[in-house]
Amino acid sequence: MAVPVILDCDPGHDDAFNIMLAAAHPAIELLAITTVAGNQTLEKTTLNARRVCTVAGIEGVPIGAGRDRPLHGTASVAVGIHGESGLDGPGFGEPTVPLDPRDGVTLIRDTLLAHPVPVTLAPTGPLTNVAALLLGHPRLAERIERIVLMGGSTGRGNTTPAAEFNIVCDPEAADIVFSSGLPVTMMGLNASHQVLATADVIARIDALGTPLSRLCTELLTFFAAAYREVFGFTAPPLHDPLTVAHIIDPQLVGLVSASVAVELTGTHTRGATVVDLDGVTGRPANAQVGMDVNVAAFWDLIVEAVRTLGGHGRS
Amino acid sequence: MAVPVILDCDPGHDDAFNIMLAAAHPAIELLAITTVAGNQTLEKTTLNARRVCTVAGIEGVPIGAGRDRPLHGTASVAVGIHGESGLDGPGFGEPTVPLDPRDGVTLIRDTLLAHPVPVTLAPTGPLTNVAALLLGHPRLAERIERIVLMGGSTGRGNTTPAAEFNIVCDPEAADIVFSSGLPVTMMGLNASHQVLATADVIARIDALGTPLSRLCTELLTFFAAAYREVFGFTAPPLHDPLTVAHIIDPQLVGLVSASVAVELTGTHTRGATVVDLDGVTGRPANAQVGMDVNVAAFWDLIVEAVRTLGGHGRS
Amino acid sequence: MAVPVILDCDPGHDDAFNIMLAAAHPAIELLAITTVAGNQTLEKTTLNARRVCTVAGIEGVPIGAGRDRPLHGTASVAVGIHGESGLDGPGFGEPTVPLDPRDGVTLIRDTLLAHPVPVTLAPTGPLTNVAALLLGHPRLAERIERIVLMGGSTGRGNTTPAAEFNIVCDPEAADIVFSSGLPVTMMGLNASHQVLATADVIARIDALGTPLSRLCTELLTFFAAAYREVFGFTAPPLHDPLTVAHIIDPQLVGLVSASVAVELTGTHTRGATVVDLDGVTGRPANAQVGMDVNVAAFWDLIVEAVRTLGGHGRS
Amino acid sequence: MAVPVILDCDPGHDDAFNIMLAAAHPAIELLAITTVAGNQTLEKTTLNARRVCTVAGIEGVPIGAGRDRPLHGTASVAVGIHGESGLDGPGFGEPTVPLDPRDGVTLIRDTLLAHPVPVTLAPTGPLTNVAALLLGHPRLAERIERIVLMGGSTGRGNTTPAAEFNIVCDPEAADIVFSSGLPVTMMGLNASHQVLATADVIARIDALGTPLSRLCTELLTFFAAAYREVFGFTAPPLHDPLTVAHIIDPQLVGLVSASVAVELTGTHTRGATVVDLDGVTGRPANAQVGMDVNVAAFWDLIVEAVRTLGGHGRS
Repeated sequence: MAVPVILDCDPGHDDAFNIMLAAAHPAIELLAITTVAGNQTLEKTTLNARRVCTVAGIEGVPIGAGRDRPLHGTASVAVGIHGESGLDGPGFGEPTVPLDPRDGVTLIRDTLLAHPVPVTLAPTGPLTNVAALLLGHPRLAERIERIVLMGGSTGRGNTTPAAEFNIVCDPEAADIVFSSGLPVTMMGLNASHQVLATADVIARIDALGTPLSRLCTELLTFFAAAYREVFGFTAPPLHDPLTVAHIIDPQLVGLVSASVAVELTGTHTRGATVVDLDGVTGRPANAQVGMDVNVAAFWDLIVEAVRTLGGHGRS
Repeated sequence: MAVPVILDCDPGHDDAFNIMLAAAHPAIELLAITTVAGNQTLEKTTLNARRVCTVAGIEGVPIGAGRDRPLHGTASVAVGIHGESGLDGPGFGEPTVPLDPRDGVTLIRDTLLAHPVPVTLAPTGPLTNVAALLLGHPRLAERIERIVLMGGSTGRGNTTPAAEFNIVCDPEAADIVFSSGLPVTMMGLNASHQVLATADVIARIDALGTPLSRLCTELLTFFAAAYREVFGFTAPPLHDPLTVAHIIDPQLVGLVSASVAVELTGTHTRGATVVDLDGVTGRPANAQVGMDVNVAAFWDLIVEAVRTLGGHGRS
Repeated sequence: MAVPVILDCDPGHDDAFNIMLAAAHPAIELLAITTVAGNQTLEKTTLNARRVCTVAGIEGVPIGAGRDRPLHGTASVAVGIHGESGLDGPGFGEPTVPLDPRDGVTLIRDTLLAHPVPVTLAPTGPLTNVAALLLGHPRLAERIERIVLMGGSTGRGNTTPAAEFNIVCDPEAADIVFSSGLPVTMMGLNASHQVLATADVIARIDALGTPLSRLCTELLTFFAAAYREVFGFTAPPLHDPLTVAHIIDPQLVGLVSASVAVELTGTHTRGATVVDLDGVTGRPANAQVGMDVNVAAFWDLIVEAVRTLGGHGRS
Repeated sequence: MAVPVILDCDPGHDDAFNIMLAAAHPAIELLAITTVAGNQTLEKTTLNARRVCTVAGIEGVPIGAGRDRPLHGTASVAVGIHGESGLDGPGFGEPTVPLDPRDGVTLIRDTLLAHPVPVTLAPTGPLTNVAALLLGHPRLAERIERIVLMGGSTGRGNTTPAAEFNIVCDPEAADIVFSSGLPVTMMGLNASHQVLATADVIARIDALGTPLSRLCTELLTFFAAAYREVFGFTAPPLHDPLTVAHIIDPQLVGLVSASVAVELTGTHTRGATVVDLDGVTGRPANAQVGMDVNVAAFWDLIVEAVRTLGGHGRS
């Protein structure tokens, strides 16, 4: 039986592949997509979600625009990595997939209430929508099966030396999610930096020869150039699809139970996820933390998803 | 035309008088009462709200139980000031006023949606419910006319040397409210320490000679003893009714516009409201801050409210 | 027997009067003056200390230039209150009093070692020099009788809504002093805002008719204008001489024992002195805190000091 | 010409090897050893410094006891790693090497003043003494050639998930050192976790067959067991001698220039060294940070030092 999933995202190149993976794989029942300010403004990430669904032929999945700024403070974007559009690289036509009139938090709420069994949330952007849901609808927690998120790191960050982008964009939201008592699985940079879209990977996708595979190649080519320039990476890490890949195949990523604390008050470390792998803090575990990734299996899933959806292409 | 008001409270002796004032005065249309963990646990503050409505004969106002802990961290209570029940002093029978089945945040939401014009919120406890509402239902902000809250201080605190109880119980919620862009009026300790329930005041209430006035006298007598013991006050400040009194009579409390920042990261000052009266911070004003109170007019309102409701009394 | 005192200061209009009071009064044996960055840069406060000694005829007291910046971070100045020179108002000639070649911390060290009995330190600027002394020469603590400082507040600040200037300029130094275990007496804004140099006070000083009294009148006239413009005060508070006045007459200022914690981590409250007057924190008292001031006796001391020194005047 | 060096340390198993390396190698002129509270109390680390010099036959190097607690707060120790004595493993007799009567900070001061050329400081414990020196004797900075310290990490910590022991013991002192403007070279956990005292390494030392080599084997055997138990390491990292090894052979450790900020205010990250390897913070470089270590060359230095000193042994 397919796992019912809501994607909460800020596309973003790697979010795009996560959407495609969730839509393509039979083990996932994609119930809704909600967007949040993150890699770009809410307006742009919402447009991008609709673009991705349009070019990948994903229809019938409601898309709702969520929060446009973090719980505290103001929004920031990752223009250096994802470009002005948030999804630079290919050209896109006007999306044909509609926007749901409900705000994203309400869309999640309605989806949770309507589904007969608890639903898995897979957030791959700042955790603002999920925190807002938990705060504004406390009785809905029991409708959530688990939360599998991309964010944080067991070591260094990427936006500051200490903090990863999704968490540092809204540290208080992250703290609310990690403190919620719900089962949380964290795929951080320590895991996602293992899944690098190398030239070989890009060649495999390009070789599919479909309109969609061509567009994916353009996305990854832009993404590779950005990571090379900003971080000196030889290939870009495709962070977000680790979430859905893990839901599809629970063995794909090794997990350890650990306490994850979100640093809220640090001058230089705000937004860091402090993961107590050695048990030195005495804090109880509140998350499963992704560690070693079966990289080959991961790319097989990605390539297969593009292949499956590939009859479509840019509009 | 009466002002439509939702009271969000944690009764609490002074909250009790605020409920009575809102119910008794013709200038207020009391739409709902929601409770929050604060002076005591949510269970107790909710019971107390029902007790107050029962003894004061306040019927037909829905009462909903809101959040039982702050956005981050765990709940604390003010047992030294309000006693084990949160409303120590008189004996109470079993309340006859029912509890609304909806959680408090949902009750506020439904009330805002159902009312034809924007509604004033008067929170007199920790701001958890209000913050949760703003986060979980962002499009409802336009249904809120303004927020008139009791909390904070322009000077010293009462729970720590720097912080007032309602704010220090949930500083992040307070920050969300003060940063919401909604019109916020703050009645802090600097204002509420002017309205002391002296022996003369208590005698005026007692002289009303009704069952309710007797119960109010017992409440104030307990409250006076607690403030004398804990803080050495000669008479207890009746903080919370400054909110409804101000809504009834906008001239009753002098206001100044100022930037109010909530300290979230201080080691010794967390929960302090940093009120920039001298304009030294360069931050724009985000609140109207109560300063000088017309004390005589305030007590006239309180006494009149007890008199108006006075046909009732403890159940 | 006169009390041996080292003044550590950042003149500054009120520092200037403290120097004159210490030099003029027979109950004080002024051993040394050290300067620190504060109201102005170290270069300017050092020049001003020499100017004050020159015009007041204070000779034979070594003056050493101490630290030019706080323990952490960079120096700030109070140009709005003390002007570009740090001692705006009168004109000054070239000072004739020399600068000691030793750095200020070394001058304090040598003075403590040379004096047969423990010495009282009276810091009226940021506490950088005193903290540096305690850290760099830990065994000298026993040569310090006590520390009587001007700084902090039991309530609101003057540089930020929460923090007083001397403390906020170097909060870590203040923490080291308050945590040193030495007897500390704090004269904060709550005390110093009682000693306002009113027109009557200025007239009394002016009426002395000496060259020095004329110069003092010009200092106070500038200071009054600055406080009027920046804070709307009707008369300026002469903060610093409360320290020496208290050493001269221990009854002049009422004291209470309390825990004083210096806020180091607050976003909006860094540098606040959190004074636990109600004993709510459970922290032991580490300071005597000045409260009610005998204002008339204070001004008598100041006027008498100017009169005593008055044969001199600007160079 | 030998490099004049002062070791400031908290022995400590790895400190012990650093002392031996500095004393044995002809490229180093060991001027003084100062101790600080860290791995154990000041009393114990001072006794241990004298023990190490006694058993290794290091004579004529003055040993001074420095600060017994950090600049702020109270001292902590690393009993789990270094045992109750701070140097558990071998038995030691009464040390014959004397204690200098001067406190450690004064000993550093006098040594700097007496030496004809600037001196290199090699701190391998909390940076309290060095910070105290810089604060209390600001004009001595020019007598310091450079500071080569063991502390911090470019990634995870060892005492908390985010912080290394030496830095977290006194973060403010570390901030003062990194902000001092002096040339600072940092050997952090990212470097020191490369130099693991494997069974092969221990066998090489044991095979020297001297009384000292036997004692060193016992030290490393205890250290290995502690690291295995606490952290699950297969072999213990010999952190501190990276400092002197780098001074002896500047090519032994690869260095990068980077901004190192010490986190002072983090709730979960206090004491973390935030090393900006990617240049994302815009802060200028203030340190050379050790990265890749020539591990074989390092162990050759250590083995050779034990061999050179080896005629001695436990007293």
